[in-house]
Amino acid sequence: MRNLKLILEYDGSKFFGFQKQPNHPTIQEALEKALSGLFQKKTKITSASGRTDTGVHAEYQVVNFKTNSTLPVTQIQKALNARLPESIAVKEAEEVNPDFHARYSARSKTYEYRIWNDPVRSPLRAKQVCYIPEPLDISKMKRAAAVLKGRHDFRSFGTNRGDGKTIDTVRTVKRIEIRTEAEAGFKPASAFIRIQIEADGFLYRMVRNIAGTLIDAGRGKLGPSGIRRILEAKDRRRAAMTAPAEGLFLVDVKYR
Amino acid sequence: MRNLKLILEYDGSKFFGFQKQPNHPTIQEALEKALSGLFQKKTKITSASGRTDTGVHAEYQVVNFKTNSTLPVTQIQKALNARLPESIAVKEAEEVNPDFHARYSARSKTYEYRIWNDPVRSPLRAKQVCYIPEPLDISKMKRAAAVLKGRHDFRSFGTNRGDGKTIDTVRTVKRIEIRTEAEAGFKPASAFIRIQIEADGFLYRMVRNIAGTLIDAGRGKLGPSGIRRILEAKDRRRAAMTAPAEGLFLVDVKYR
Repeated sequence: MRNLKLILEYDGSKFFGFQKQPNHPTIQEALEKALSGLFQKKTKITSASGRTDTGVHAEYQVVNFKTNSTLPVTQIQKALNARLPESIAVKEAEEVNPDFHARYSARSKTYEYRIWNDPVRSPLRAKQVCYIPEPLDISKMKRAAAVLKGRHDFRSFGTNRGDGKTIDTVRTVKRIEIRTEAEAGFKPASAFIRIQIEADGFLYRMVRNIAGTLIDAGRGKLGPSGIRRILEAKDRRRAAMTAPAEGLFLVDVKYR
Repeated sequence: MRNLKLILEYDGSKFFGFQKQPNHPTIQEALEKALSGLFQKKTKITSASGRTDTGVHAEYQVVNFKTNSTLPVTQIQKALNARLPESIAVKEAEEVNPDFHARYSARSKTYEYRIWNDPVRSPLRAKQVCYIPEPLDISKMKRAAAVLKGRHDFRSFGTNRGDGKTIDTVRTVKRIEIRTEAEAGFKPASAFIRIQIEADGFLYRMVRNIAGTLIDAGRGKLGPSGIRRILEAKDRRRAAMTAPAEGLFLVDVKYR
């Protein structure tokens, strides 16, 4: 069996998350339908780098699957793009080692949280940003974010999946960056804030919980010492609200 | 009566164009409904800087309307944003001179045509770009565009509205620029091409007809001398296909 790796982009606003579930359209279901149709044989994916929630987008999601098909990868990519809905695309396809696993082989993943920080919401960016009308202080957000860099117990920023499992909640945040960017000269230049977080792994809803807390920092409700106290408390109730899914993008996955 | 000017942003993919028409949702209809609801009185707009077609977007559309309401403009803006659908927003509101007319007072308008030039379509940018999978040569597009700058008879780039009217087809293109832009570091950096055209006025579908022709230039089908011949022919059949509406954005209007 060949082991194939795919890089996907998708508009999460059209799906009930990545993972298959009954009676709701999901990315996994659409992808497996396209694979099975192409190979004329029921084909499931082996793994995805992360299971994005309802409404969460991907610029760069990685999956792998096994197949006996001998079709060249470029043809598989083209055929899948023809079969997939407009809201999902295969950006790259590649044959990989038999032991490659989209989730377990990953060395790090990068998520980006996008905020539209302007008194007026943006119709052209609806469903792809979190809209915060009150002005945020970027330098305060940066100082707060710096505290989260490194190896910490992120229990305060993890949401329990409700499956009763106890998991190790120590993760390493390799990089956390906050940028404001003028989008091709459109005013207001500073309205678009991006929080990028690269880590060796993420707890359930960790990025959205961190984003919610950094938004509070930008509002002046919380400084670096407050963030430190939240980390030390190891208690989810201490961090801020989970920021909405529509601002979240999976943007990169690095492999060994 | 006060004369009020509004700057609008809208997602054109949700409407059958700007101008009101029976049995189809339009931007004008949604806006007049919000105005009439707010003022508890049937309120129509006097003018819009341009009537965008079905699927065409606006980062910056200008309209004006007359009202007896004494509400402060900031309150009018907020109340309209609360009443308008997610796909339309009022970015600014301002009281202007009684003789200000969104269309006739305009000194220039700027449209931008956005192309996604990558072998793979982009789900996150669907309905907001024109997808061209074959690689385009940007320097050829720039050389071709330069020919269109200045005062010309653009008859070859105008589509007849079908109302039998003969109109003056001389316009002045003040600026025509082609840029490729890396969007916040996402690969491929050169996939996103923007054609910006500022002119004192535009013929019906002129930007989309120019975009189609510049895309042909980027494919190597047409050089600067070919563009010159199209201009001189003053015949719509000589230019390329009209590029699709979804790539077109009204992005600025300048006033005297």
